[in-house]
Amino acid sequence: MALADLQAVARNDAGIAAVLGILKQRFGDRFQTGAAIRGQHAHTTTYIPSQLPDGVAFVQSTEEVQEVVRICGDYHVPVIPFGTGTSLEGHVNAPGGGISIDLMGMNRILSVNAEDLDCTIEPGVTREDLNTHLRDTGLFFPIDPGANASLGGMASTRASGTNAVRYGTMRENVLSLTAVTADGKAVTTARRARKSSAGYDLTRLFVGSEGTLGVITSLTLKLYGIPQAISGGVCPFPSVEAACQAVIATIQMGIPVARIELVNALTMRSLNEYSKLGYPESPCLFVEFHGSESGVKEQAETFGEIVGEFGGGPFQWTNVAEERTKLWKARHDAYWAGLAMRPGCKGLSTDVCVPISRLAECINETEDDIAACGLIAPIVGHVGDGNFHVLVLMDPDDPKEIETTEAFVARLNMRAIAMEGTCTGEHGVGQGKIAFLPHELGAGVDVMRAIKHALDPHNIMNPGKVLPISAP
Amino acid sequence: MALADLQAVARNDAGIAAVLGILKQRFGDRFQTGAAIRGQHAHTTTYIPSQLPDGVAFVQSTEEVQEVVRICGDYHVPVIPFGTGTSLEGHVNAPGGGISIDLMGMNRILSVNAEDLDCTIEPGVTREDLNTHLRDTGLFFPIDPGANASLGGMASTRASGTNAVRYGTMRENVLSLTAVTADGKAVTTARRARKSSAGYDLTRLFVGSEGTLGVITSLTLKLYGIPQAISGGVCPFPSVEAACQAVIATIQMGIPVARIELVNALTMRSLNEYSKLGYPESPCLFVEFHGSESGVKEQAETFGEIVGEFGGGPFQWTNVAEERTKLWKARHDAYWAGLAMRPGCKGLSTDVCVPISRLAECINETEDDIAACGLIAPIVGHVGDGNFHVLVLMDPDDPKEIETTEAFVARLNMRAIAMEGTCTGEHGVGQGKIAFLPHELGAGVDVMRAIKHALDPHNIMNPGKVLPISAP
Repeated sequence: MALADLQAVARNDAGIAAVLGILKQRFGDRFQTGAAIRGQHAHTTTYIPSQLPDGVAFVQSTEEVQEVVRICGDYHVPVIPFGTGTSLEGHVNAPGGGISIDLMGMNRILSVNAEDLDCTIEPGVTREDLNTHLRDTGLFFPIDPGANASLGGMASTRASGTNAVRYGTMRENVLSLTAVTADGKAVTTARRARKSSAGYDLTRLFVGSEGTLGVITSLTLKLYGIPQAISGGVCPFPSVEAACQAVIATIQMGIPVARIELVNALTMRSLNEYSKLGYPESPCLFVEFHGSESGVKEQAETFGEIVGEFGGGPFQWTNVAEERTKLWKARHDAYWAGLAMRPGCKGLSTDVCVPISRLAECINETEDDIAACGLIAPIVGHVGDGNFHVLVLMDPDDPKEIETTEAFVARLNMRAIAMEGTCTGEHGVGQGKIAFLPHELGAGVDVMRAIKHALDPHNIMNPGKVLPISAP
Repeated sequence: MALADLQAVARNDAGIAAVLGILKQRFGDRFQTGAAIRGQHAHTTTYIPSQLPDGVAFVQSTEEVQEVVRICGDYHVPVIPFGTGTSLEGHVNAPGGGISIDLMGMNRILSVNAEDLDCTIEPGVTREDLNTHLRDTGLFFPIDPGANASLGGMASTRASGTNAVRYGTMRENVLSLTAVTADGKAVTTARRARKSSAGYDLTRLFVGSEGTLGVITSLTLKLYGIPQAISGGVCPFPSVEAACQAVIATIQMGIPVARIELVNALTMRSLNEYSKLGYPESPCLFVEFHGSESGVKEQAETFGEIVGEFGGGPFQWTNVAEERTKLWKARHDAYWAGLAMRPGCKGLSTDVCVPISRLAECINETEDDIAACGLIAPIVGHVGDGNFHVLVLMDPDDPKEIETTEAFVARLNMRAIAMEGTCTGEHGVGQGKIAFLPHELGAGVDVMRAIKHALDPHNIMNPGKVLPISAP
């Protein structure tokens, strides 16, 4: 079924016209309707075409978000929250038009509670902003999805990244949040206690709901002490299976690995070419350990012994900061190194996640599939979680190639689901994965729809995302 | 307002009579209506009077749960899930009568996936059953709320216990679950992948919903490798403040403490008397470290240095299993040691949780309050989480003492909420804390009510629990 049929978002021209007038009067220059600004707020990072909002409100407070939502609610006009626009599944598109709420002006760090290892921030604070602010406290916020995303956006998509295996995802690291719901109320989901059994877990309900249940206007996040010492290194393996088996053994032994990233042979080649490095061009694990000086040494040595049992090695590791930085820069350059393999191409980054026991099988089948359909698509994986990304290098102007890519992504999602996995480990559903959600969760989607309808009866909160749902 | 007014659960005699007939015919001896069995299924562990269900169905499969729910749904009759009955806030009471679903016959371990560190079980498996089953795998399930509770019940109340500071609570350790909702559907909330961004977090919605949204009929849980080595010990402090400051410093340094328990001076005295021990009768921390041989030694030594900076010590620790067992047996005996301080009394165990920076203040004010109102009430705390328990030793036949206890508990809850904390860190709301939820979460309770109404429009799922809600 076509995406538009799954979304079924009808455009409400009369309501939109009314709202545009009211918002212009209320927000003046902080409400923009020019094509360029609207285009920036609907830029998708995928093959899904941009669908522009009708206006963009640059808000500065929870109360202003409430105002925008109430005005839009009165006229049944969609609201689409917007952060850095780095999401990967068309989350910021406006399939029925409506108002984009740009939250990047809400970028204050409201409090840092060092004793409680938490902080409260506005949603437009980026992860790099936060860590810069924290620099003198000895604390840090670990979640790193690659892009310097806004923390509100990261919460909305339930983002994670390379160190989720140790620190968890946004799910585990948001203590509480405030969201403006479709009725214009500001709802705070929890208190600042580290744990609670008081009622339904509203925090987790809003985390990952991609703006479809409310607009997040503040977040209380867990912080961590910066580790005393860090060690890390790279280890080649004869096969993806061998690398995955080494990861399984490492985790079973309880080694508290902070990052453990699989980079497939094609990606290793791209890294070497891009950065003039001399890594082995076979599947590699990039690993990092956090702890005390002696602890990270012991962990690295134990890991070195484990990899040997699976035919991996040599494992070269270091606790020298500059060398580690170089190593992780290479890993983080994977996206750009990939793009450089095919000048002029666009990179489509997709993600799935499977139980780790099925990971090697899933990656191998995917590599075979890539070869069979003639795509170029390097793979990297947050292998401790069973999560991996395929970066399809495609010509965005070639409809046939887009079609091939779409079909490949569909097979990849169904393959992951068939292996007891999920169609998205960390990117979210957005528009790109709506079609797969029912395959993955069956009757669970009905429960989601019931919740969506209860909290947003007129379907104004980021409509056409996450759920295959009919307009009211 | 009286509890009955907050609950507003009306009894539906005609519907109940009809359901009793149908279930008797369908389940035969596995459906019981005798007073003794009904009484066992409504035994509250608090001062809330028992409210008996009208019958108890001993189910053996998800399909049987669906049948019971559908039959009850047809007649708008309440269903109350039942595990071991060890919950602490009247969760299993039947204020409007109805059918108790006893899930203890659903006690199969369906699969253990050692490579994925997960297992899938039925809800009647207890945590001790599971760990016995896992013994030969090198894996364990860490969450330990004290009682040998059923894992379904632990998920329903979002339970945790002494090692949540390291391993998290049931929130973090349920990967997926199946729940039978009010319409009789069996909904599986997630796949077996370690992380997912696919849609609303239904797993977390059901975890902690106390049977008010559905009856849990299977659970997929995270498992952990049994640590290679464990060290632990006891450390006295001159004050609760000093102990809490040492805990804060320990966590800020990133020492991965597995358990860190505060035992107040009165509780230490009770432990000495109960088990003929010679511990110092001042506030103490009981701690445990999990890791490699050298890792747990280093952690214990570093902790010993930290406590010295706050006037604590001597910190006596051991890595000898028998000595550790003795130490933790003393801590786990706190409930019985407390009861022994006042023969014939009943113990009312209540819990709150605050940000750790407020913990000492909250405990000190609570100790003063206990003294001022003439109660005897030892305190123990999962201090790494800011969570503590007060065990009020009361005469259950003295209405004045019950009144004093109720008033004390109310002040305790409001005190925790005023300190940005929660009225329950791990026991759940049940009936006992309904009145405090709106003080804690305000408009959040409206969102919970909307979800409850959407998923259970006739309010048949464990009605009168969690939410102040009117009958339809």
